[in-house]
Amino acid sequence: MTFKFNNSFINETYTVTGPYEKKGPLSKYFDYSFDDLYCGAKTWEQAEINLIKKTFSFFKTKPNLFISGDLLNQIIASTYSVKDFNLPFIGIYSACSTSTLGLILASSLVENNMVDNIIVSSSSHNCSAEKQFRYPIEYGGPKKKTTTFTTTGCGMALVSNKGNIKIESGTIGKVIDLDVKDVNYIGAVMAPSAAYVINRHLKDLNRTIDYYDMVFTGDLGLYGMKILKDLMKQEYNIELNNYNDCGVMIYDLDKQNVYSGASGPACLPLVSYSYIFNLMKQKKLKKVLLIATGSLHSTTMLNQKLSIPSIAHAISLEVIWYIYIHFYFVVLFV
Amino acid sequence: MTFKFNNSFINETYTVTGPYEKKGPLSKYFDYSFDDLYCGAKTWEQAEINLIKKTFSFFKTKPNLFISGDLLNQIIASTYSVKDFNLPFIGIYSACSTSTLGLILASSLVENNMVDNIIVSSSSHNCSAEKQFRYPIEYGGPKKKTTTFTTTGCGMALVSNKGNIKIESGTIGKVIDLDVKDVNYIGAVMAPSAAYVINRHLKDLNRTIDYYDMVFTGDLGLYGMKILKDLMKQEYNIELNNYNDCGVMIYDLDKQNVYSGASGPACLPLVSYSYIFNLMKQKKLKKVLLIATGSLHSTTMLNQKLSIPSIAHAISLEVIWYIYIHFYFVVLFV
Repeated sequence: MTFKFNNSFINETYTVTGPYEKKGPLSKYFDYSFDDLYCGAKTWEQAEINLIKKTFSFFKTKPNLFISGDLLNQIIASTYSVKDFNLPFIGIYSACSTSTLGLILASSLVENNMVDNIIVSSSSHNCSAEKQFRYPIEYGGPKKKTTTFTTTGCGMALVSNKGNIKIESGTIGKVIDLDVKDVNYIGAVMAPSAAYVINRHLKDLNRTIDYYDMVFTGDLGLYGMKILKDLMKQEYNIELNNYNDCGVMIYDLDKQNVYSGASGPACLPLVSYSYIFNLMKQKKLKKVLLIATGSLHSTTMLNQKLSIPSIAHAISLEVIWYIYIHFYFVVLFV
Repeated sequence: MTFKFNNSFINETYTVTGPYEKKGPLSKYFDYSFDDLYCGAKTWEQAEINLIKKTFSFFKTKPNLFISGDLLNQIIASTYSVKDFNLPFIGIYSACSTSTLGLILASSLVENNMVDNIIVSSSSHNCSAEKQFRYPIEYGGPKKKTTTFTTTGCGMALVSNKGNIKIESGTIGKVIDLDVKDVNYIGAVMAPSAAYVINRHLKDLNRTIDYYDMVFTGDLGLYGMKILKDLMKQEYNIELNNYNDCGVMIYDLDKQNVYSGASGPACLPLVSYSYIFNLMKQKKLKKVLLIATGSLHSTTMLNQKLSIPSIAHAISLEVIWYIYIHFYFVVLFV
């Protein structure tokens, strides 16, 4: 299901990260990075709340609505932050595909003049996520090389009817389950959802993949990227060439011990709202397709021997350049 | 934040319940009730999935989009059901206020002709919820009289641009936290959110409370109702007279051992899509305000000694009667 937008733009964006992301290659593009994983709090969940509050503090425009989601049960990072913001709130759950789902919902409301300014937020914290979904990091358990490393950070975008980055269209994905049960290989869980939504997007809009200067997935990691490329070729006869994954861009995979790359709802926003938008504003990229992918992973269901479903949502972005005409009235005192 | 709608209607609704609800006073209004709490499955979570699948099976109209949420971590009841429905999916988390949030989102998309037919679903299961949030019911722990009893059931509504029940407007609430920490008194947690959203709704639309024939909250229970009435009077000088709570309507509180009433995301839809809509279709009620209230309760945050935030979302419904003119062409064979 694809929506076309004419009047929906990303106006302001901010990114706040933890220390691992600060040591990565995109460090200089982030608005702020905490040096300590606790981010000034006493627990990992409260550290994630601080990431959200810090990101929110940068906004110059007062929003009318806040749309947010995260990985934690009952999306507590979002709900416990937003209670201090005094804003109407829509809570969404779409795991690591939260950001693009939120942007599609926000665009739908802004496009139809229902709301003026909406902040879309998504966050994750390595330690709160590992504790909830796998093992607390304090256990020091060994990891498979296909594992991804949950990013610590928060990315927010203000959607309104003005700005340089236009949200040109958005495609809502469906839940897909190809019977993968390995929580240390979520790239394999999510790649089929990414393939489905890219093909759906192109078909709905009657486009070919070369319409886009670049295609970015959220957090498939090194192995998930390969699976996606193979799936696109085999299932849909599409060659995915100008393609990269935010999960392999945010860290230095040779030097930082992050296995096959990054993951988490913060991953795509951290990379796109900083580095990718910068390339777009420099006109190095004009048309970009972003696909955030979510592993709908539940420890309860895995204990019941069920597999992991996934979903992905895509948005198409275009950079717009306005010509501003300024009239200067010069008062001459003679 | 209140949206007015002109072209958004509830077309089809279905309700499926468990055995406790079948023994309650509204039994005859439900479309189907399971006699066994397991609903044909082997686990409580999979029982909740079966409630959703059964409800979905009744629909005559094929939807284009599915919006759903539930109480379980990672909204697994929704995601593991929808993977069989082959539909674009928006996952939301708003605890027991899921239904009205979903209806507001669906109305926003239908109103602006972005989607034709959207199913909004919300579900809960007594045993999956108790197990996740308090203690497994098999422990047989004692309960306080202020406790509410999570409903077992699923309610779905199809939102489109035709139907007898018009979604006339909707108000999105904000997260409120008045420092209540008692998981056995969620009526007290949620009442302030209900009060806030009712007042916001009336102010935004310049209405008084007597605009509505009846006001229904979702699951405040006996004690929560009293708190809401007091709060409305004290904070906003509004007398809440024609008012009831779905949580006290669905069970026989004198005979069924359900403490102060029912709760859960299924509670409001089960009562409104069956009994309340029936009254509306009989013209006994014309204008109704529904407020689903959600306790954003997290065991993790309670263990960290934090209080429970809440949120509520309101929708205004009106029954519409069309005069259908049928032309019968009678072919006379003489």
